[in-house]
Amino acid sequence: MPELRRDPVVERWTLIEVATSKPATQYHREKKALQNPDICPFCPTKEHLTPSEVAAVRLDNSQPNTPGWSVRTFPNKFPALADREYLNKEGLGIYDVMSGVGAHELIIETPPHQQQMADLNDSEMSLLMRHYQERFIHLAKDKRFKYVMLFKNKGLSAGSTMEHAHGQLIALPMVPKYVLEEIHGADHYYQINKRCVFCDIVAQEVQDKERIVVENEKFIAFCPFASRYAFETWILPKNHGHDFAKADQATLDQLGAILQRVLKQMKSTLGDCAYNFYLHTSPNNWGDLPYFHWHIEVIPKLTRSVGFEWGTGLHIVPTDPAMAARELRDNS
Amino acid sequence: MPELRRDPVVERWTLIEVATSKPATQYHREKKALQNPDICPFCPTKEHLTPSEVAAVRLDNSQPNTPGWSVRTFPNKFPALADREYLNKEGLGIYDVMSGVGAHELIIETPPHQQQMADLNDSEMSLLMRHYQERFIHLAKDKRFKYVMLFKNKGLSAGSTMEHAHGQLIALPMVPKYVLEEIHGADHYYQINKRCVFCDIVAQEVQDKERIVVENEKFIAFCPFASRYAFETWILPKNHGHDFAKADQATLDQLGAILQRVLKQMKSTLGDCAYNFYLHTSPNNWGDLPYFHWHIEVIPKLTRSVGFEWGTGLHIVPTDPAMAARELRDNS
Repeated sequence: MPELRRDPVVERWTLIEVATSKPATQYHREKKALQNPDICPFCPTKEHLTPSEVAAVRLDNSQPNTPGWSVRTFPNKFPALADREYLNKEGLGIYDVMSGVGAHELIIETPPHQQQMADLNDSEMSLLMRHYQERFIHLAKDKRFKYVMLFKNKGLSAGSTMEHAHGQLIALPMVPKYVLEEIHGADHYYQINKRCVFCDIVAQEVQDKERIVVENEKFIAFCPFASRYAFETWILPKNHGHDFAKADQATLDQLGAILQRVLKQMKSTLGDCAYNFYLHTSPNNWGDLPYFHWHIEVIPKLTRSVGFEWGTGLHIVPTDPAMAARELRDNS
Repeated sequence: MPELRRDPVVERWTLIEVATSKPATQYHREKKALQNPDICPFCPTKEHLTPSEVAAVRLDNSQPNTPGWSVRTFPNKFPALADREYLNKEGLGIYDVMSGVGAHELIIETPPHQQQMADLNDSEMSLLMRHYQERFIHLAKDKRFKYVMLFKNKGLSAGSTMEHAHGQLIALPMVPKYVLEEIHGADHYYQINKRCVFCDIVAQEVQDKERIVVENEKFIAFCPFASRYAFETWILPKNHGHDFAKADQATLDQLGAILQRVLKQMKSTLGDCAYNFYLHTSPNNWGDLPYFHWHIEVIPKLTRSVGFEWGTGLHIVPTDPAMAARELRDNS
């Protein structure tokens, strides 16, 4: 019999096929349509094809918008939101409207066209995490913005039309719904239990062991008990911290290391599948939150959401998270 | 500049590209891989390939599990939930678990393999809506179930591997999150305004006119002001009603007529695209709800959700709902 499980943060139920759990080999793999690197605007020597860079990691003192970078950030040519001064709010009858003011940056994560984040070494990951954090802090300082969303789409079925490894930052004039839901759920848990729900999840996963994918001194990666997607993996700092911006260099080093391990394990297990990941952290300038705990959620794109899931919010998960974690561990 | 718009029911923001709105012709269309009708288990004369029917519309007094039906319902061979007596709830550390007890039925909507719901005539739609409602009421009576979800997946990218037109019913042992969110949001609006938010939406759409796709005496179909998806269309009864089960035959007739019109307009406008629709109605045995209003949401599958949307709940909508409604109207 399938099992209904409830996420302790947002109280979302999911339906897990524990009895007839589907192993990694039974998922359809995305056929890789390789892009021609000659026409990739994200490759070195093509810097003139992108908007001017706003930041880069350049270890050789090379000039902006020329080769020599390790990581390179520029505004998205096709931004989701407009970087303008004007922030208007109005009511239109019963509806509320706000002008779409924000910022949208692309972070090119590595120069070689074919290199994926899963292929980077620890020092490359460390530089990249530091760069991510610097851009995050830069955007979070802007008074127009209430939240900065750091995320990555890898592969066509994860919504990425560009093959060259890149992450994205979108600064928003309001705190998005899913972040608010986590914050409200965590606050509610804290009111009752006087503990951070994410800290309790870390303790529970360490005790149960079976859903752990990989861990290091500062982080744990695991397939959540009430996963929404097969092979979904969360990366949580073991110690409480509400704000990614406050992570020190040692923490960023370990974050880079564990994120790369998870992606490499997914690549080995799921055959270079498409995936998304995103960072959930404290909204800008909210001060210390004893109940909220920043983290990364990685979602391989193996299944399609269907009408039932759109209508209910209840996801059907064909693979038991404990089985998913075991398969990922076996491919480390 | 794009526009952030807030849904008045669940307070979900969406980002609408009002200035550079994308017309229907610019969306990628799903290539149709036609199934061989000879191997379709949903076709007449193949009744022995499905589980035994639990109900059917048979105008010719033909026997169960033989041809002669207009609409035919049987339990899903691969049910999402198990139809068992035993409903167990337990806590596992900080997590909550419930056994996946439920029911899952498939409703074959028309005998001919190639016929779509968009091709049915008014009397066929009327029979089908009545049958949908009868199965809904039958499942809602079961004391184990708290909610019955009626939905349809059409086309591969909407999650349907079977081409033959069919709807689905899933009975759940709890009220799903998205339905609860609408109920809580509508209740909150009612506490403040003493009016049903959905009734207010109907009034606003009738006044604004530009987002109306089609209407008849009892229903209005429109592209919501804060749509999550391009060409998303909602069908609302004009008069307040919290429970689909209570709709009378005249209402079901008009529901069938408007649903078929909307699907036909989408087919003309979007080239036989994949879509999902689902019904949101009152949970089983909740009594009269002055603040909640049953409705159908139709979502054509034109775009992919990406990391940003998974992480935020904020959807980026490339087509202004007013433009979508105009294009749908022009193809009626």
